Amino acid sequence: MTILIEESEASPEVKAIYEDIKAVRKVDWVNNFWKAMARHPATLKRMWDNIKQVMAPGAIDPLTKEMIYIAVSVTNNSRYCIASHSAAARAKGMTEEQYAELLAVIGLANETNRLVHGYDVPVDPQFSTD
Amino acid sequence: MTILIEESEASPEVKAIYEDIKAVRKVDWVNNFWKAMARHPATLKRMWDNIKQVMAPGAIDPLTKEMIYIAVSVTNNSRYCIASHSAAARAKGMTEEQYAELLAVIGLANETNRLVHGYDVPVDPQFSTD
Amino acid sequence: MTILIEESEASPEVKAIYEDIKAVRKVDWVNNFWKAMARHPATLKRMWDNIKQVMAPGAIDPLTKEMIYIAVSVTNNSRYCIASHSAAARAKGMTEEQYAELLAVIGLANETNRLVHGYDVPVDPQFSTD
Amino acid sequence: MTILIEESEASPEVKAIYEDIKAVRKVDWVNNFWKAMARHPATLKRMWDNIKQVMAPGAIDPLTKEMIYIAVSVTNNSRYCIASHSAAARAKGMTEEQYAELLAVIGLANETNRLVHGYDVPVDPQFSTD
Amino acid sequence: MTILIEESEASPEVKAIYEDIKAVRKVDWVNNFWKAMARHPATLKRMWDNIKQVMAPGAIDPLTKEMIYIAVSVTNNSRYCIASHSAAARAKGMTEEQYAELLAVIGLANETNRLVHGYDVPVDPQFSTD
Amino acid sequence: MTILIEESEASPEVKAIYEDIKAVRKVDWVNNFWKAMARHPATLKRMWDNIKQVMAPGAIDPLTKEMIYIAVSVTNNSRYCIASHSAAARAKGMTEEQYAELLAVIGLANETNRLVHGYDVPVDPQFSTD
Repeated sequence: MTILIEESEASPEVKAIYEDIKAVRKVDWVNNFWKAMARHPATLKRMWDNIKQVMAPGAIDPLTKEMIYIAVSVTNNSRYCIASHSAAARAKGMTEEQYAELLAVIGLANETNRLVHGYDVPVDPQFSTD
Repeated sequence: MTILIEESEASPEVKAIYEDIKAVRKVDWVNNFWKAMARHPATLKRMWDNIKQVMAPGAIDPLTKEMIYIAVSVTNNSRYCIASHSAAARAKGMTEEQYAELLAVIGLANETNRLVHGYDVPVDPQFSTD
Repeated sequence: MTILIEESEASPEVKAIYEDIKAVRKVDWVNNFWKAMARHPATLKRMWDNIKQVMAPGAIDPLTKEMIYIAVSVTNNSRYCIASHSAAARAKGMTEEQYAELLAVIGLANETNRLVHGYDVPVDPQFSTD
Repeated sequence: MTILIEESEASPEVKAIYEDIKAVRKVDWVNNFWKAMARHPATLKRMWDNIKQVMAPGAIDPLTKEMIYIAVSVTNNSRYCIASHSAAARAKGMTEEQYAELLAVIGLANETNRLVHGYDVPVDPQFSTD
Repeated sequence: MTILIEESEASPEVKAIYEDIKAVRKVDWVNNFWKAMARHPATLKRMWDNIKQVMAPGAIDPLTKEMIYIAVSVTNNSRYCIASHSAAARAKGMTEEQYAELLAVIGLANETNRLVHGYDVPVDPQFSTD
Repeated sequence: MTILIEESEASPEVKAIYEDIKAVRKVDWVNNFWKAMARHPATLKRMWDNIKQVMAPGAIDPLTKEMIYIAVSVTNNSRYCIASHSAAARAKGMTEEQYAELLAVIGLANETNRLVHGYDVPVDPQFSTD
């Protein structure tokens, strides 16, 4: 069974990060990912620092970032991350039509990636970024 | 060496698809992916039909679709598709800052996917789509 | 449902391998991996011969070999192998702190692998093994 | 062509990180990974902070961490990371015999991962971490 | 919970595809893959058109195509596709002995793929397809 | 640079395996895979024993086994194995039409694997092997 550190049993160090997660995300609960990371507080802190920085609004908007996250997680068959980031994307406005198109692109990219490997297609000089 | 069917040697059937690719994409050349697919015209036609449908503007805009394509291709280490879809994304307006943020999200998702596998984190009931 | 060949129903050929597994590993039961392989005795024998050779103490110690096994299995999201090799690593002395550090390295490597693909970083000549 | 930020053209912010990399690693040059990351200083800083923390000596020794890194990179076919972390492992004392055993474990794990998927082997209750 | 469109609640457009699936495959029920795709009728139609074309008897016989499908799905740890295509392969005559040999080849290929990455083996000029 | 053990410099132990490879395969040269494995004779012997057993004619014919090998290698983007097993398949009679159909199935399976992950499709009870 997975060991999860519940909020009621968290050390002050872990509790403080849980509170920051809830504040930044404007939610009133902490999801299991963080409760599992909390087994190793240094990892909990490091991952939260990374996610807070990378997933913040920037040159790419937060909903698009969630869809990119889903693209990776579906490709890797990572069920937890598919579920959590799909929920996050829906909370940010993703419609069912968008989710269907997202999966269609993910599926097609996984297909053409393999056609390219199988035919060993050379990169066109026009695609150089020089 | 990869066999590529150049425009000058294409059969009428293949030539017609090449022309459609150039017209739909508003470009004056055909990239190597299609020249490799043309070895098997049924695959060339099928893949073009799929890509034309899936990558068309819809509930998700074309630039976001390119970034999703890149997320899959980087995860799979598919060098040709990274090069071609990065070029396509840049042509649709992707900035270097956006590319950097895109890679940051892709990298982080690949990391947390594995943390989730290693700790076998159970899906929270709140993420159910019921 | 997965077909598992229990010890009580094993053929003499399979039974002999089960006994060797228990003797080499100093355990009194056979785990499901072997009971599934036993559906095809040639595979059972081949895999046991391979694992016995590769996982034996050598230039790398047995606990480190288990951690390498976990690194692969977590990357591939192979739940059974994560569970069985984590148990084996713990039996060989892996602490929770070590497991947390192991997952941290696995996660980070999966992240930087993709940054390298996305930026198409050329191998430094200094890394050549000439 | 990949854009690499050479030391001579680095901004003060990037230059300071390059100096820290050289000091922590006791080397007199910066490898291409960092020169590629430097295109986006926030990513350069974040990745260096992560790697410095995760790869530091801890409950797992630095050479073992390098071998874990290689296990992930070989599984993902990430050529740059295989080359750079093999060089790092050799610098920390990895012998050719150890590299051969490392690859043997990586190969075998990738094999049994798939046998487990194909036979859908259920996790033994004895492997529970309760 | 996964949303599945049952035959009784399908729109005429979806119902027509369900009927074609049953007719082409000579079965009297529709499996969950199609009921999930039916959430987005354009994807349902596109995927059925693709599968009908690609999996049809051609230069490769249908049973071999199913085994190729299984090889990909086992490599990707895609449990649903392993189950559905194993059932399809059995319905087309695959024996247990064949399934065992199929998994043995899949496992071995996944192993040697990694040995090749780890030793960075150069392609022999004799393997060129010029 | 990859270290390859040429026939002229092989130890008697390695030389004997090279001779067996040439005899079993009815060829007059040894390809680079084996020359790389020969750096560690125990691995060379083990892998040759495995491949000789698994790839031998059995319930599945040798050409089909090569196509399964290619399906795994294309999915993993393992360029050397794609090249060597495509050459082997062609030597056993694979036509260009068959190679095109093989890649089409591989591509499609990689696509539907991801659609299944994204929609989290439950396995139909009819696919049970009880």
